[in-house]
Amino acid sequence: MGTETFTPGEVSAMDQALDLASRGVRGANPLVGAVILDADGATLATGYHRGAGTPHAEADALANARATHAVVTGATMVVTLEPCNHTGRTGPCSRAIIDAGLGRVVFAAADTTDAAAGGAAALRAAGIEVASGLGAGAAMELNARWALAADQRRPFVTLKIASSLDGRIAAEDGTSQWITGAQARQDGQAIRSRVDAILVGTGTALADNPRLTARTPDGAEAERQPLRVVVGRRPVPADAAVRGRDGRFVQLDTHDPAVAAADLFGRGVRHLLVEGGSTLASAFLRAGLVDELVVYTAPLLLGAGLGSVTGLGVATLSDAPRWRWDTAGGGAVMHLGADLRLRLEPVPPPFDDETKDG
Amino acid sequence: MGTETFTPGEVSAMDQALDLASRGVRGANPLVGAVILDADGATLATGYHRGAGTPHAEADALANARATHAVVTGATMVVTLEPCNHTGRTGPCSRAIIDAGLGRVVFAAADTTDAAAGGAAALRAAGIEVASGLGAGAAMELNARWALAADQRRPFVTLKIASSLDGRIAAEDGTSQWITGAQARQDGQAIRSRVDAILVGTGTALADNPRLTARTPDGAEAERQPLRVVVGRRPVPADAAVRGRDGRFVQLDTHDPAVAAADLFGRGVRHLLVEGGSTLASAFLRAGLVDELVVYTAPLLLGAGLGSVTGLGVATLSDAPRWRWDTAGGGAVMHLGADLRLRLEPVPPPFDDETKDG
Repeated sequence: MGTETFTPGEVSAMDQALDLASRGVRGANPLVGAVILDADGATLATGYHRGAGTPHAEADALANARATHAVVTGATMVVTLEPCNHTGRTGPCSRAIIDAGLGRVVFAAADTTDAAAGGAAALRAAGIEVASGLGAGAAMELNARWALAADQRRPFVTLKIASSLDGRIAAEDGTSQWITGAQARQDGQAIRSRVDAILVGTGTALADNPRLTARTPDGAEAERQPLRVVVGRRPVPADAAVRGRDGRFVQLDTHDPAVAAADLFGRGVRHLLVEGGSTLASAFLRAGLVDELVVYTAPLLLGAGLGSVTGLGVATLSDAPRWRWDTAGGGAVMHLGADLRLRLEPVPPPFDDETKDG
Repeated sequence: MGTETFTPGEVSAMDQALDLASRGVRGANPLVGAVILDADGATLATGYHRGAGTPHAEADALANARATHAVVTGATMVVTLEPCNHTGRTGPCSRAIIDAGLGRVVFAAADTTDAAAGGAAALRAAGIEVASGLGAGAAMELNARWALAADQRRPFVTLKIASSLDGRIAAEDGTSQWITGAQARQDGQAIRSRVDAILVGTGTALADNPRLTARTPDGAEAERQPLRVVVGRRPVPADAAVRGRDGRFVQLDTHDPAVAAADLFGRGVRHLLVEGGSTLASAFLRAGLVDELVVYTAPLLLGAGLGSVTGLGVATLSDAPRWRWDTAGGGAVMHLGADLRLRLEPVPPPFDDETKDG
């Protein structure tokens, strides 16, 4: 791919596509952005993927082109990920691109997942010119944790923590409702409504008796409900709220996060939200299985009480894994009422951008 | 004052003056903004106070008017605080306003400090029309903690904490250098260079042997050096770095933050930076003596090690004093390299705005 050549318009369109990609929210699907260019390199339409269950970036860009009656016959699509070749919740992007009559596709990173791969070959077979590698490093870095989770055949894992400025999730007497305010809690509900499963430990299930349902701002249950999962060996009472009545409850008899994650992947879970408690959250962190960290920080200091995490195996400062602020999906820092939402991701390994080397 | 009347131009100028005021940094002096209006209510110049040792807002606005050759004779100054009447590091603002030939002064809140009060009377005596109370609630709220510190005849207190996301200031083995990166540490040095004194406990003095000097980015000592203060009864060794060679070192034989604060006020300290450790920081918090909280948050989780604060006397969640994000002085949240700087202030009591009631 080092011998591919790209027009200046394609190079700047890829930068734009990467920016668009980062507007999406992380989860079951990778972040992808797309730009459609005419023969002169002018932008005809743009699109990006807003999260699982919504159109892929390519389909979004094509729909935006249709909405403005732009003529895309023979046009070039610049997209941050190889167009998919499978029918998931939406149809294959390779088919949509072929049907729209595009002449050329430039993508950054190859899609190596079993289900979606093969898009480039399908496009070429239909007579579409395909080039790749432009912006590959940045595109791979953008979805590094998503790709790692896919490679490991486990869900993308979001860990949610709601704590005081000094990292406490409960006061000395155990009170924890509510450290954060209504807006932060509603944001947490919005995450619940996007994920495939919510996980808590038996300690949390027994102590707080949570419903683990996704609820709308008026308190009603959201249309889409995640699987409710309790991990641990202690029995969950027959009348526990988490059991619900819809059959979407499961208890996993394990303390190993990797075992739980693999089990849930086998059940079709591609985005998992770990809600706590402290022990479970720490086990996922220690295992390196947290892909996205969402911390709701309340403007108070408690000075005592349960810490958000414990026993991470970090003996000395230089041992601590580094995270970085994740600017995708609305930004790393957001004010939510009186609270602050912080979003972080593990610092990824370095990715080479072939187009810079070649 | 409820019978004062203000022009629409003065009302909007006061909003602007309050915005300008909040650009300043907190410390020894209150945040103040000023706008000079011509007879038609058009803005001739604006100004604000950038912090101790720099011109007051009124002087800044007058200087900006001079710089643009604006004619201020007979003009109106709208300012968020009663112009001062004393010569401190800068001359009295009442004198500057009289000398500039202004015709009218509208101020929000009265200056009740012994040293500075009397500005309105001085202006009136010089034949200048004076009205007050416009925006008083907002102006008093903006400087609530500064006014409280002045009332209590103690310094304005800034507490600095550098911690992990889970509120640890050191790892399990005690390592703490450096939790935060170079940019955050340099920002901490910039605070040091603004304050009148830096306070640590004997524990920190003995364990870390800090110099407590303010240093420039290249590591040299800043021109202006704060008083270096150690509180506690354990002797500070003769060769301790904190002693320095300039005589600007003092040890206070007390564990009571109020006693230390009062003592330092008596020595002329108007802005005090509390740097730690955890025990000292917590004592100041418990005593309600922290006016500004600066938290440098590093993007890592430690799971063990010394907490940033301890023993605040908060037994249950509802007991926890509430803080709020302080948008003055560059904003509540700032990215500094890989770290985040959070700035908060105690939630002030409600202030009535007389002009809204009257």
